[in-house]
Amino acid sequence: MPSSDSFNVGLVGLGTVGTGVIKMLDQNAGLIAQRAGRPIKIISVTASNKNKDRGVDLSSYEWVDHAQDMCTDDRLDAIVEMVGGSEGFAKDLVEGALKAGKHVVTANKALLAEHGAALAELAESQKVCLAYEAAVAGGIPIIKTLREGLAGNQINSIHGILNGTCNYILTEMRETGRDFSDVLKEAQEKGYAEADPTFDVDGIDAAHKLVLLGALAFGVKPDFKALNITGIRHITAQDIQYADELGYRIKLLGTARREGSSYMQTMEPCLVSKKSALGNVEGVFNAVMTQGDFVDKTMMEGRGAGEGPTASSIVADIIDLAKGNGLPTFGISAKDLKETKWQGPENIVGKCYIHLHVQDDAGVLADITSCLKDQKISIESVIQRGHEDETSGAASVVILTHTARFADVKESVKNIESLKTTINAPTILRVEKL
Amino acid sequence: MPSSDSFNVGLVGLGTVGTGVIKMLDQNAGLIAQRAGRPIKIISVTASNKNKDRGVDLSSYEWVDHAQDMCTDDRLDAIVEMVGGSEGFAKDLVEGALKAGKHVVTANKALLAEHGAALAELAESQKVCLAYEAAVAGGIPIIKTLREGLAGNQINSIHGILNGTCNYILTEMRETGRDFSDVLKEAQEKGYAEADPTFDVDGIDAAHKLVLLGALAFGVKPDFKALNITGIRHITAQDIQYADELGYRIKLLGTARREGSSYMQTMEPCLVSKKSALGNVEGVFNAVMTQGDFVDKTMMEGRGAGEGPTASSIVADIIDLAKGNGLPTFGISAKDLKETKWQGPENIVGKCYIHLHVQDDAGVLADITSCLKDQKISIESVIQRGHEDETSGAASVVILTHTARFADVKESVKNIESLKTTINAPTILRVEKL
Repeated sequence: MPSSDSFNVGLVGLGTVGTGVIKMLDQNAGLIAQRAGRPIKIISVTASNKNKDRGVDLSSYEWVDHAQDMCTDDRLDAIVEMVGGSEGFAKDLVEGALKAGKHVVTANKALLAEHGAALAELAESQKVCLAYEAAVAGGIPIIKTLREGLAGNQINSIHGILNGTCNYILTEMRETGRDFSDVLKEAQEKGYAEADPTFDVDGIDAAHKLVLLGALAFGVKPDFKALNITGIRHITAQDIQYADELGYRIKLLGTARREGSSYMQTMEPCLVSKKSALGNVEGVFNAVMTQGDFVDKTMMEGRGAGEGPTASSIVADIIDLAKGNGLPTFGISAKDLKETKWQGPENIVGKCYIHLHVQDDAGVLADITSCLKDQKISIESVIQRGHEDETSGAASVVILTHTARFADVKESVKNIESLKTTINAPTILRVEKL
Repeated sequence: MPSSDSFNVGLVGLGTVGTGVIKMLDQNAGLIAQRAGRPIKIISVTASNKNKDRGVDLSSYEWVDHAQDMCTDDRLDAIVEMVGGSEGFAKDLVEGALKAGKHVVTANKALLAEHGAALAELAESQKVCLAYEAAVAGGIPIIKTLREGLAGNQINSIHGILNGTCNYILTEMRETGRDFSDVLKEAQEKGYAEADPTFDVDGIDAAHKLVLLGALAFGVKPDFKALNITGIRHITAQDIQYADELGYRIKLLGTARREGSSYMQTMEPCLVSKKSALGNVEGVFNAVMTQGDFVDKTMMEGRGAGEGPTASSIVADIIDLAKGNGLPTFGISAKDLKETKWQGPENIVGKCYIHLHVQDDAGVLADITSCLKDQKISIESVIQRGHEDETSGAASVVILTHTARFADVKESVKNIESLKTTINAPTILRVEKL
């Protein structure tokens, strides 16, 4: 049983998330103390700019000029890192805190995805915890669900919509028929997308999260470098409309799968059935579907970012630590985490969506289908509509294949690309069966 | 850190659930030991019939003739109760185990819903845990999510589809247009419904679960007797079809809500939007949507019953206990649980669905709408179609009201019922906005 003494934290980083944590710990102090079995107390705070007005009163906390000084503050039980970044300041701080025997709570997915195995070992050797519920899917307690709620299961697969910005853009493109760059610009103006949207729209942010889920689910070392990542910049309003006609939505989808002792992970835009639960996750929402050997499919959906949801996850971690309910970073002892060779999506067998831009000459469809036939790929549906461009005679041909190995589809599309009738690069997307 | 000694359990009840737990602990023993930090060992088992073939090998466990004897077995850390029932054997066993200082893991929603407050106090006084993840929504770790994952939030509302049998029947009625009794019979033949379906179709099973969620979410004593419960026997295929036309699905929905210091709970069939996440939960699946002050809406969906999913939740509880991560039964100290006066749905303001069976005489609609007008209830849609019955001249009139207080709608329908043109009892269902 925890003592009645307060559980003391220092907060590093006072942006949206840090401000949300202060508000939550203040506003819900009574019930949080009841649930934690003791009060949670913010002792000290720090951020890059001391004088910025953040809309919260900091006067009852000590301001620390150098975050590293928190590591040597004997009053602190945990340091909450809300700065971000896989190298430099955040990494030094987290390492310093763990080495000093303090628990760390963080929302830093990049740091964990790139240095998780080493940090897990460090935390374990110091008998402290590295908690990161807020790093994946915002307010959805998916880390706890995988690490504890489903702990009796062998997890076979994870599918996740893990980036709200991308899901918002794809939803907006579908609903309004507008193109990627147009919707991105609007999202930036509304504050749903960063000025530099690379991390979001190129799939890197979502990939960091997927790597953590995969490590947890399968008991393997997180391996960001081994992950196949494709973003959504090349998805057009046309693709979304064709997918819709075929009964699908396009989602930036993270997939991690275990087959015996072989592991596969990929982050890429995929077609998912409109009727599936994940296909109905729209706008800024995130969702994760897991499949376990006993529990079968479970899905969680909620807000993937923002002040309140992220604070909710950070405070949940703090409460767990205050209760003394700490767990190994990836659910099992760091020394038991397996080193694995991840596969990419090449060997996945499923349907594929192919969008070709062709010169609408006689025999063009015959040439295309012959390329597919060479790889023994059969066709489920074809959509071909008049001319896209009256002067050039360019037309779209959309093909939905029957199940085939993804690498074979890619190979046949490479052959189609070399036909003299093919204009522009084709788009190939996997259909993920959920 | 837990010791490397095994965590020892005794299993009471070897039906579907008990068999599932044995299979899971056996099949996934390696990874469970990794995640629990120590092996989980079944020491002893018991059930009403020793000689039944359950398809699992029991030879390595001690058979105990009297379950109560497990309470005095010093080797046991926890007793797993999988018998069920709110009184008698199961209650005596759980009390006996707690009094003997043993942790209890149970799937017994009736026991917890009816005696939860007293049992929570007993467990706390004995410094042991009463864990019941399996009691609510099968494999969905919703107890853990509410008690830990969202612990920083003031929970404002819970909506749940908590009975797979009812959801299966309602889904099947919609998809096939068949009536309740017909689908129930088939469900019984398929094993989806019990021979005596009362607990399921009259909403009692779902109500037990809702009471536990409400207690956890709001930090109040579970109070089953205060719950308004309506089952699904009176829902017709016609109702489901009319609801569909109006853009809704009919679901047996549990609702618990906090408004300031006032609490409301109700279990009843409601109309929910076809486009809502809960509206899309079909067949035997369960789902729970929560709304917290910081995290906003979160939804979890999964299998609500069955060997694998229920075992998954029981084993997750056992792993938590083996790690030493026990928590108070309802998330806070039993002595802090508030006594509350629950409201029913009377004061809920929302749209309502009214299905009237009337004699199709001149002026009948004028009389009906005048009754509604008397209670200041305005109408959003009316569906009236020819004669249901050519000889009697009976017809259905379906009205969707604008938002109104539920009690006022009921009052006006009482007046409609007394009109001489009204045949049969009307059906009134709330539209729950999600």
